[in-house]
Amino acid sequence: MCRSVRFRAFRWLIACGIALCFSVADVWAASGGSRSEEIFIALGWIVVVLLAARIGSAIERIGQPPVLGEILAGVVLSGFALVGVHWLEPMRTSVVMRFLAEVGTIVLLFQIGLESNLEQFRRVGLRATLVGTVGVFFPFVGGYFLGQYLYPEGGANMHIFLGATLTATSVGISVRVFRDLGVASSKETSIILGAAVIDDVLGVVILAVVQGLVKTGTFELLDVAIIIGKSLLFLVGAIVVGGRLAPWLARWMARLSTSTTMKFAVPIAVCFLASFVAYLADLAPIIGAFGAGLILDRVHFDIYRAPQIVEEIEHDILPDLGEPHRSRLVGILQRHRLHHIEELIQPLAYFFVPMFFVMTGFSVDLRTFGTLGVVVAGLLITLVAVVGKLVAGAVAGSVRRWIVGWGMVPRGEVGLIFASVGLGIGVVTAEEYSAIMLMVMLTTLVTPIVLGRLLRRGSAS
Amino acid sequence: MCRSVRFRAFRWLIACGIALCFSVADVWAASGGSRSEEIFIALGWIVVVLLAARIGSAIERIGQPPVLGEILAGVVLSGFALVGVHWLEPMRTSVVMRFLAEVGTIVLLFQIGLESNLEQFRRVGLRATLVGTVGVFFPFVGGYFLGQYLYPEGGANMHIFLGATLTATSVGISVRVFRDLGVASSKETSIILGAAVIDDVLGVVILAVVQGLVKTGTFELLDVAIIIGKSLLFLVGAIVVGGRLAPWLARWMARLSTSTTMKFAVPIAVCFLASFVAYLADLAPIIGAFGAGLILDRVHFDIYRAPQIVEEIEHDILPDLGEPHRSRLVGILQRHRLHHIEELIQPLAYFFVPMFFVMTGFSVDLRTFGTLGVVVAGLLITLVAVVGKLVAGAVAGSVRRWIVGWGMVPRGEVGLIFASVGLGIGVVTAEEYSAIMLMVMLTTLVTPIVLGRLLRRGSAS
Repeated sequence: MCRSVRFRAFRWLIACGIALCFSVADVWAASGGSRSEEIFIALGWIVVVLLAARIGSAIERIGQPPVLGEILAGVVLSGFALVGVHWLEPMRTSVVMRFLAEVGTIVLLFQIGLESNLEQFRRVGLRATLVGTVGVFFPFVGGYFLGQYLYPEGGANMHIFLGATLTATSVGISVRVFRDLGVASSKETSIILGAAVIDDVLGVVILAVVQGLVKTGTFELLDVAIIIGKSLLFLVGAIVVGGRLAPWLARWMARLSTSTTMKFAVPIAVCFLASFVAYLADLAPIIGAFGAGLILDRVHFDIYRAPQIVEEIEHDILPDLGEPHRSRLVGILQRHRLHHIEELIQPLAYFFVPMFFVMTGFSVDLRTFGTLGVVVAGLLITLVAVVGKLVAGAVAGSVRRWIVGWGMVPRGEVGLIFASVGLGIGVVTAEEYSAIMLMVMLTTLVTPIVLGRLLRRGSAS
Repeated sequence: MCRSVRFRAFRWLIACGIALCFSVADVWAASGGSRSEEIFIALGWIVVVLLAARIGSAIERIGQPPVLGEILAGVVLSGFALVGVHWLEPMRTSVVMRFLAEVGTIVLLFQIGLESNLEQFRRVGLRATLVGTVGVFFPFVGGYFLGQYLYPEGGANMHIFLGATLTATSVGISVRVFRDLGVASSKETSIILGAAVIDDVLGVVILAVVQGLVKTGTFELLDVAIIIGKSLLFLVGAIVVGGRLAPWLARWMARLSTSTTMKFAVPIAVCFLASFVAYLADLAPIIGAFGAGLILDRVHFDIYRAPQIVEEIEHDILPDLGEPHRSRLVGILQRHRLHHIEELIQPLAYFFVPMFFVMTGFSVDLRTFGTLGVVVAGLLITLVAVVGKLVAGAVAGSVRRWIVGWGMVPRGEVGLIFASVGLGIGVVTAEEYSAIMLMVMLTTLVTPIVLGRLLRRGSAS
């Protein structure tokens, strides 16, 4: 009963959305869609994309991660064209919308970089490295050979790309699922997080290699070495040089003024600068954003002023508060002081990141799902993606190995970025993209269900 | 000594900026600046704009409002072209940068709408209405006749536009200055805030009228009535209909999910939708954003979940805390719960709003300042702008009238928006724009100095 009411509300809202689109469609058609108007029409698109993401993320209510709902919302918007609503079609080529989606990936990878703490990684050390490496190797090789089998005419680049798409674990999704299920501080979580750092680094290197291969067109070992070298140099350089430079820059900026703008402008500027430099160095901008996140992770955050509420409580309440309230309150304040940089970035992420996911779903060509071949290919790719990570989980040692394996299954945002890069540079066709999309959706969808069962069963191998 | 060190640091940083621009300039030139590349080049521009805004806002250290520094930073960037650095020039026509600046004005006016509380206005009632109306009338008439005197060849539209530019008080700057000087809850402040609401509403109506006049080309009373009617209908409609609809929408969305995305997506979507609808209704998008701010001001904010720190303290500390700590802590928590919506918008403002101010400064043609005529015109416009508001302050009744008058002098962002709209639709020439810019800079610069003196002297008339 309750569910049917919910579904009715959904249907009602989708109807409203369609009506809105229709009514605005003539305005757009009348305005002719000149270049100057795009700035204002984009305001309308942003409303549609934000609300679609919002409605899609309600999928959380039936226990699914919001990211899946956002992608599905994009797919639904994409389907509007099939029923005669063409108002949203210019979004596909809009510079503004593509810029917003690009910034979405940059902000997201910056956040993942911020989350990928090098300390976490050191704690689980060797074991996480092993799991991470195995978890890159098997899906990559599996994806490569599956590519040869499924798309023999696709060429080596396509097969490598498919393999690369299967390597990366989505840190965001894993952490989110574990946090939701209340096991955020288990040993399994630490291993998965550590392995995810390895995955991410190897993943971006592989992405850079593949992008380079596509640009030069040949598979020369020297080129591969140069690209790997460039990527590693960039990441290591970002960590070493940036790690020294960023705290200095931040401290200098902090001295220059105590304005709140400072707290915000420096991390964002470092993130965009790193993305831009990566772009100038022929790497993907997201590599730069990830590197910037790793750098700023090590910046001494205490130079950033605490949020106002923390200051007020420290000033007004703490001085004459007795134990044990005092130390408990200090603990809470400390926790929220440290995460302030991420809290400042978060609202930007709320704005930009859904742009990427909805636009990603929007780029799915629904007609390709009608083909049996795409569905079968998608299922086979999903199988390789899951098995590859379960093998990695199997080498995790004396922990709940199934949980480690399944925790690394979701491909989420990173897989999507790979796939859309592939589509952008023409290596991946629309049909293959749809099959990869199916894999991303299935891994993202299945993981919370399976992990929930495993954790409730208290399974121990 | 200390100041000279600071200046040296400035010079050093500007040198670095120039070096960066030079080195990147060839890359841009080599890439040919195709449409697709704009997405990535914009990342570099954003870094330059954000850091320029950041460095400019250090002007705060010598007691000036950051907004002035941001504009000056844009002027400096604009000057780079004069010394042979052309890398930034494509920013002038970049769709992406113009979109970011546009969103900057939208977010800013949305914030001002959120700040313009209708309750505040009711408290000071009639007196604020009188001050606000006089403060619109005199500068408008003064600006109109000064326009006729200074630019007889400019035509009636230009003279009306100059008058309109002088009407609006910058709520943001006044509130900021009063807060900095510790008199945020005085009677004078309430009157200025109330009058500023009147100013804002009349200002946007005047802007709409003038824009309409320019489009139709003639000065027909019927047209004016239609435009005034449309603007008022839009604002009243926004307040009445939106005021009823928005809480319902927000509550419905809150029921749909408890995700944090919701807290963010609804206000932003309402803001952008209102801007888009205003655009479709031939009004300026900023009118819509201001209206959206007024609506959401009345939404019951308690349906938005409190920030996590508030929840943790309520859950872990409050239950077993004794008086008087308890009620003091509850007070602090209450305050920070209520302002949550503005805190969520603030980081977006940090990102987008400087884009507008720097791009505004960037649009100044420095060569026009070389003309004596522009400087003299700018000084005369400033004189009218200041005297017009001091007259308004004189009718404020038994309060410190000089403070009310001077508190309404800064034109800041709203004046700049008027001027750039005028430049955009071709009513205002580059020279007149520079003169208006000089007025905005002078009023923004002089006000904190004068107000500081008046308040310290305890002047009482």
